Amino acid sequence: MELWIEEIQGQDVRLGLRSKTVLHREVSEFQEILVVDTLSYGRALMLDGTFQVTEKDEFVYHEMLAHLPLMSHPAPRRVLVIGGGDGGTIREVVRHPEVEEAILCEIDPRVTAVCREYLPSVASGLSDPRVKVLHEDGIAYIEQHEGAFDVILIDSTDPVGPAVGLYSESFYAACKRALRPGGIVCAQSESPFVNGDVVRRVSLSVKSAFSQRLLYLAPLPTYPSGLWSFTAGSDHELPRVVDKERAARLFTRYYTAAVHEAAFALPPFAAALVE
Amino acid sequence: MELWIEEIQGQDVRLGLRSKTVLHREVSEFQEILVVDTLSYGRALMLDGTFQVTEKDEFVYHEMLAHLPLMSHPAPRRVLVIGGGDGGTIREVVRHPEVEEAILCEIDPRVTAVCREYLPSVASGLSDPRVKVLHEDGIAYIEQHEGAFDVILIDSTDPVGPAVGLYSESFYAACKRALRPGGIVCAQSESPFVNGDVVRRVSLSVKSAFSQRLLYLAPLPTYPSGLWSFTAGSDHELPRVVDKERAARLFTRYYTAAVHEAAFALPPFAAALVE
Repeated sequence: MELWIEEIQGQDVRLGLRSKTVLHREVSEFQEILVVDTLSYGRALMLDGTFQVTEKDEFVYHEMLAHLPLMSHPAPRRVLVIGGGDGGTIREVVRHPEVEEAILCEIDPRVTAVCREYLPSVASGLSDPRVKVLHEDGIAYIEQHEGAFDVILIDSTDPVGPAVGLYSESFYAACKRALRPGGIVCAQSESPFVNGDVVRRVSLSVKSAFSQRLLYLAPLPTYPSGLWSFTAGSDHELPRVVDKERAARLFTRYYTAAVHEAAFALPPFAAALVE
Repeated sequence: MELWIEEIQGQDVRLGLRSKTVLHREVSEFQEILVVDTLSYGRALMLDGTFQVTEKDEFVYHEMLAHLPLMSHPAPRRVLVIGGGDGGTIREVVRHPEVEEAILCEIDPRVTAVCREYLPSVASGLSDPRVKVLHEDGIAYIEQHEGAFDVILIDSTDPVGPAVGLYSESFYAACKRALRPGGIVCAQSESPFVNGDVVRRVSLSVKSAFSQRLLYLAPLPTYPSGLWSFTAGSDHELPRVVDKERAARLFTRYYTAAVHEAAFALPPFAAALVE
């Protein structure tokens, strides 16, 4: 018997991964949660039929979502992650010794529980004593916490279902209020090859609230098109050059101070999306 | 009826593209040639079941294979492309006004003919008066042309079938003999995520012949893992900083002088493949 787990990516593309077994499957209050053991990418988490995390490539996404904004801040003491229930982003956040408190606000407690059980290498950071895990609605949480965070990371699912409010201008206005002076927000903003409209929407929402905006890219084999984007915003300048020694102490596999600087070299086809 | 064209990428991954129609299918002396019209990536060329070129993403591959080495050379007058029968690499080569002669050495005349008919936007460069198209074996051709080229680009298929000899040390030794002083060779060298062995093999072959070596990456949605690598070699230093104005005159969608410099920021997971 052959077992293939397949994602229909944007109607007209499908990515299939040959798998050994389905490790877990449930329907939570919010979504279908599936964990499969694939031959080429290790264990994979799917939410509503969409690959979220695989053991083999998750380091790129989580390092690039966390380290570029945190390294852009001189002293990121309080960090909030919205979504990201798998724990991968938090794992990278707590690599920074400057972080005193990291709050994960993941609406679905079952995602966190399933990842703790089946993806321990991803969820490991959730056990750090500086981490507080909340199962609340991220939008409501942000509204209630003004001037509370140095960095806010939006590690959301696609702009359908529970995550749709995380793409709006009013959400980024609330992020701005929730940040301390000099604070930075950064969101995953989908693929520049196949979700140009989302890249543009996030960029405009960030621009409506912040004076500085940075779109940057990283490869993600199991996400649509294999190329992903992130959008950072701040009212302070986002530095191109960061401290090499501070970056080296993160012990990363993708992010470095040189990769940080290189992220500012946006190819014209992607830059055109947000002009 | 639903028509899906699917590539089995390395046994355990499959990428399917929903398609409108099959435009052409034949078995040449060397391989199966298929052109399909996909909904998400435009027209796509497959050779022996492997996506080679799609209209939507080919610019990244062809720009990065051609411009990084050509911009690294002060005056690339004579350029040889081995493989690349679709014409996309040659199209980029002839954007350089310094190029006086560009030779395409593609073993299979049917690839060139099919691409001229079905992928005119890719094959367009083949009609430039400076271009000479040869249907010969690239290895034999290189052996017969000592000191003839400023830049040699290896735009080959995967290391199975007709292309296997293009990955060997003896081939790179022959490339070195075929180059003029200060010459540069550059090859596509597969995915750092899923073909680490090939990345390493090409790198070692280049290293065996040249004192300078550069591994660099670019996103390619329809290639395995969506991230591709290129390996350049030379006995002269490959410059990190190139002439911005010369680069701007290429009118590219991916490559710029800034992207060139950023290509030197290799993520540690990829650098580890060639250490």
